[in-house]
Amino acid sequence: MSKNTFNIRTDLALEACELLKTEEEIKLDGIKSSTKTKNGIEITYVEIFNETGSKATGKPIGKYITVETPKIRGNDPQVKENVIKETADTLSKLIKPNKYKNILIAGLGNRYITPDSLGPKVVAKILVTRHIKDTLPETIDENVASVAAIAPGVMGITGIETGEILSGIIEKINPDLLIAIDALAARKFSRINSVIQMSDSGISPGSGVGNKRMTLDKETLGIPVIAIGVPTVVDAATLVNDTMDRILAEMAAASKDKSFYEMLDSIEGEERYTLINDLLTPYAENMFVTPKEVDAVIERLADIISNAINIAIHPALNPGDINRYV
Amino acid sequence: MSKNTFNIRTDLALEACELLKTEEEIKLDGIKSSTKTKNGIEITYVEIFNETGSKATGKPIGKYITVETPKIRGNDPQVKENVIKETADTLSKLIKPNKYKNILIAGLGNRYITPDSLGPKVVAKILVTRHIKDTLPETIDENVASVAAIAPGVMGITGIETGEILSGIIEKINPDLLIAIDALAARKFSRINSVIQMSDSGISPGSGVGNKRMTLDKETLGIPVIAIGVPTVVDAATLVNDTMDRILAEMAAASKDKSFYEMLDSIEGEERYTLINDLLTPYAENMFVTPKEVDAVIERLADIISNAINIAIHPALNPGDINRYV
Amino acid sequence: MSKNTFNIRTDLALEACELLKTEEEIKLDGIKSSTKTKNGIEITYVEIFNETGSKATGKPIGKYITVETPKIRGNDPQVKENVIKETADTLSKLIKPNKYKNILIAGLGNRYITPDSLGPKVVAKILVTRHIKDTLPETIDENVASVAAIAPGVMGITGIETGEILSGIIEKINPDLLIAIDALAARKFSRINSVIQMSDSGISPGSGVGNKRMTLDKETLGIPVIAIGVPTVVDAATLVNDTMDRILAEMAAASKDKSFYEMLDSIEGEERYTLINDLLTPYAENMFVTPKEVDAVIERLADIISNAINIAIHPALNPGDINRYV
Amino acid sequence: MSKNTFNIRTDLALEACELLKTEEEIKLDGIKSSTKTKNGIEITYVEIFNETGSKATGKPIGKYITVETPKIRGNDPQVKENVIKETADTLSKLIKPNKYKNILIAGLGNRYITPDSLGPKVVAKILVTRHIKDTLPETIDENVASVAAIAPGVMGITGIETGEILSGIIEKINPDLLIAIDALAARKFSRINSVIQMSDSGISPGSGVGNKRMTLDKETLGIPVIAIGVPTVVDAATLVNDTMDRILAEMAAASKDKSFYEMLDSIEGEERYTLINDLLTPYAENMFVTPKEVDAVIERLADIISNAINIAIHPALNPGDINRYV
Repeated sequence: MSKNTFNIRTDLALEACELLKTEEEIKLDGIKSSTKTKNGIEITYVEIFNETGSKATGKPIGKYITVETPKIRGNDPQVKENVIKETADTLSKLIKPNKYKNILIAGLGNRYITPDSLGPKVVAKILVTRHIKDTLPETIDENVASVAAIAPGVMGITGIETGEILSGIIEKINPDLLIAIDALAARKFSRINSVIQMSDSGISPGSGVGNKRMTLDKETLGIPVIAIGVPTVVDAATLVNDTMDRILAEMAAASKDKSFYEMLDSIEGEERYTLINDLLTPYAENMFVTPKEVDAVIERLADIISNAINIAIHPALNPGDINRYV
Repeated sequence: MSKNTFNIRTDLALEACELLKTEEEIKLDGIKSSTKTKNGIEITYVEIFNETGSKATGKPIGKYITVETPKIRGNDPQVKENVIKETADTLSKLIKPNKYKNILIAGLGNRYITPDSLGPKVVAKILVTRHIKDTLPETIDENVASVAAIAPGVMGITGIETGEILSGIIEKINPDLLIAIDALAARKFSRINSVIQMSDSGISPGSGVGNKRMTLDKETLGIPVIAIGVPTVVDAATLVNDTMDRILAEMAAASKDKSFYEMLDSIEGEERYTLINDLLTPYAENMFVTPKEVDAVIERLADIISNAINIAIHPALNPGDINRYV
Repeated sequence: MSKNTFNIRTDLALEACELLKTEEEIKLDGIKSSTKTKNGIEITYVEIFNETGSKATGKPIGKYITVETPKIRGNDPQVKENVIKETADTLSKLIKPNKYKNILIAGLGNRYITPDSLGPKVVAKILVTRHIKDTLPETIDENVASVAAIAPGVMGITGIETGEILSGIIEKINPDLLIAIDALAARKFSRINSVIQMSDSGISPGSGVGNKRMTLDKETLGIPVIAIGVPTVVDAATLVNDTMDRILAEMAAASKDKSFYEMLDSIEGEERYTLINDLLTPYAENMFVTPKEVDAVIERLADIISNAINIAIHPALNPGDINRYV
Repeated sequence: MSKNTFNIRTDLALEACELLKTEEEIKLDGIKSSTKTKNGIEITYVEIFNETGSKATGKPIGKYITVETPKIRGNDPQVKENVIKETADTLSKLIKPNKYKNILIAGLGNRYITPDSLGPKVVAKILVTRHIKDTLPETIDENVASVAAIAPGVMGITGIETGEILSGIIEKINPDLLIAIDALAARKFSRINSVIQMSDSGISPGSGVGNKRMTLDKETLGIPVIAIGVPTVVDAATLVNDTMDRILAEMAAASKDKSFYEMLDSIEGEERYTLINDLLTPYAENMFVTPKEVDAVIERLADIISNAINIAIHPALNPGDINRYV
């Protein structure tokens, strides 16, 4: 097993592919990837279309689209509007609007831990219509989807698997699509709070701050699942490991006799990651690395994602209508 | 239909009975009520045991026990401990500990509206065990119930009836008891945040701040339901109506010719309430009357109720154990 | 003393004038008032220019401008933008931009009581520049004011008069203008969270939810004070009193013999208010009447007011610049 | 300059001394240190009594007392009570009760960044008496200090140095003692949220999460300053550096030829720290490492510290009294 196919500490397909590239496995069968830039926003399409690609990246087969700009972290209203637009467009393509008539939105994560609270915060801003569809004016009713939304909480607080809660609700209200929002973990600092990943391959709650749980996808829930995620943390072991890579490179560059550092560098990545992780445990087991301004950024991201969802799932409403209803 | 059996603006059986008493219907068939005082706490038992009693009070058949002291609103640790003890004792009797082995706790209400956030706040402090029962030491496992907890949100945010969400989850995890916590509406200012009502007759989510919804009880959910509620608001029309009663009494007392006030007073209570309500609508429709210190008091009440539940449902654990686990 | 000059339960000059009008004292010397409507927003100018006007309204001499629309309570981005623009324009006229070079913003009120937290929430969104003025690009520095901002807290939490704290800070940093933001009390339900009042006559912290304290004005602080306020609550006694007025009118209209109601109505307003207040005390002393959606509306109002202040005090920056800096 | 006297990444005198010990400078003149254990709590006294000691540790001359137990992070009420008692006892000795009659408490830090919000949260729970001293019963008045409390905010939000705000308030209300609470940075993960340091040597606001500012001490403010701090974060560079130390030790232990690792280890600590810091900047500049449960732990620490302060500054009141007043 290649070290790259094992234990890649990222929820972003984008980063999983980058790791492959650095290992010159770039032309691997089973993965397609392309990037374009629009209004200063980088949009990356990754498609994993067979088991080979899935194994190499550690990600399920499916489409992964990221909308990325470090400017999301700032407070520029124009950037915000552009990101909402790109995110809504991407979602629309994944959702194929007007095909799904009954949509359930699930905001995963722990609302009491700021970097994990993105999902619940998005849910609070969704334009739900399931309970008022009968009362909407006929002229717009036709094209408005029936939308419900739930923040199921995390297993540490509920004692119940997120998948069990959602599956119970799905059996009651019979949606034909689930859109799940969750905080993710990234490998690179520079991606924290600056990437929105959307995919049609399902989601494993708690990949970011929490622990891996039962995957939510068509197989487990019986309906298609669109996942939306933003990396909000980097785990402590990843931080140390990546910094060590850079340190060794710097040291080797500065040293006459490079053999020492080359040898050190030659230690298998996975072996080193495990060593670091063991050393940091138990001290750092429950630690995460997050930016100071996390509270404000999570609020803004919740605004962006909820707006994009509202636009994508209610194509008959314009943004002004939506704001009037929420 | 007597005016008393119609539209009584209270969720407290205690207050529904008081209204009857003032109308001298005190010896009505179908209701038993008694009060005792312990450590400065007033404990009132009301039992409504047939349809006559139910009609007179507007409450379903069942037991209603209130633990009441205005001192809950303060911050005295001794009072808090006493209230926790009485509440836990009362719950234990209603729950009949060790009979139920799988308990679901539901914190009803809207976490984004402070006086309606009691339920979700209690849930966050419940000692859930369902997901870790296998890992508990054998010595204590035997007597520890499997407990799960959920804050399902309100229909305005989820688009789904609370009853549908709970019923979906119940079918998945098969608990044998539901304990539901909700904020209530009281008729009297003096009772706001100073009474904890427990009953075995089910609950209608949103009686307090929200609107009436599908009742949660054995009939609708298939399992027994223990309801725990605290009145956290008084509605604006009730406030005006009750104050007018007092004003008329004062005016009559101060006036030589009482006939005017007696006539005014003679207007049917219900007619007057309806008049007031109409006048206040639409201005006051979404208004509520609540004390300034509501944020702090709701936190304390959530502490008290979650502690009492933890003690009552985990009889094998002492309070110290519980604090270590939460 | 006329009943109107005593104990008018409103912080809005607008409402104080309305009360006069109903008493047909409309042409009183010392008060000028005019109203215009722009983009669905009602803008009312009240000027109280001598002691007669001040006594009649219970307000200090000065200009009082209100920007009013019930739509502020909704979530329409166009309305929000219009209200920000009108508020910024009004503030600009009161502030006379570029005259003041060192501005202190004070967000009054208790951040732990939602309807009283407007001031602290505005302060968190102000573009403060005092500490970074040296680092701004020269091209914009010239026209950017030095701005500092403080949320001094309330006396119940600090043990210090707000006036003392501000006066101590003013002596240290020597601003030439204070802008103070506070929650107010209104007389009418319909005005809650739908009016922004700006005035140049100073402010008494705690008029809304708290108790009256030392006035903040040029006399007490040595620098001009612009006050910005929004009524966020109605007190319980006002609610009852105003509802009774309407009830009596309805009853009289419906009755053949109007004499009873006319007599009841003839009881002096102040006498009745005092009676009501006495009856409600102590139950309602610490109660207030507020809308359910108060948390969300206060956030929106803080956004509107902070934006308007940022635009008015930094005339050299456009809204885009401001958002990039905050 | 020794590497130890430069740039030690800790606010804890305890850790500064440990670094010295590892360097065998243990018998340095100018520092005394002793440790005792009581009820599972480790209490360490460090006294730095001259310039030599101050240079070696990078800390000002003064007494530094730490109350330490990892159990603070848990939720055991007995542990909480013990920590409150030890903290109150330590404070009492530093404060010399009954000597100071007018005390100002300052909660430093940014309330909008959870790990930096300890100070403002403590202030909200202090029993302030300055504004009600006249109204206290005579029997207790004599021994109750006049206490005021303020959360001055951080310079990024106020535009004003914390020292300027406090100095302005001190000139107005003339306290004879300042007690300042702030979040700190630690060097070791294991100390996060498990140590309370008290000292009489003043404090530099923003040492923890923010940036170093004007020191608050007797020299700058004119009155004695007691500082209370808890390390709530570790900076990213410290995390990497310390982990690398452990990695190198492990690698050397596991390797036959130790020369490589010994050489790597021999790189000066400061040189390596600087290298790491440079590599992490700008990515990690605004990042911090903090535990998941930070919200709940900060609440508990605020409870503990406010209780300890209330007991230490109001020796005439027992804990029950204090709870009744707050």
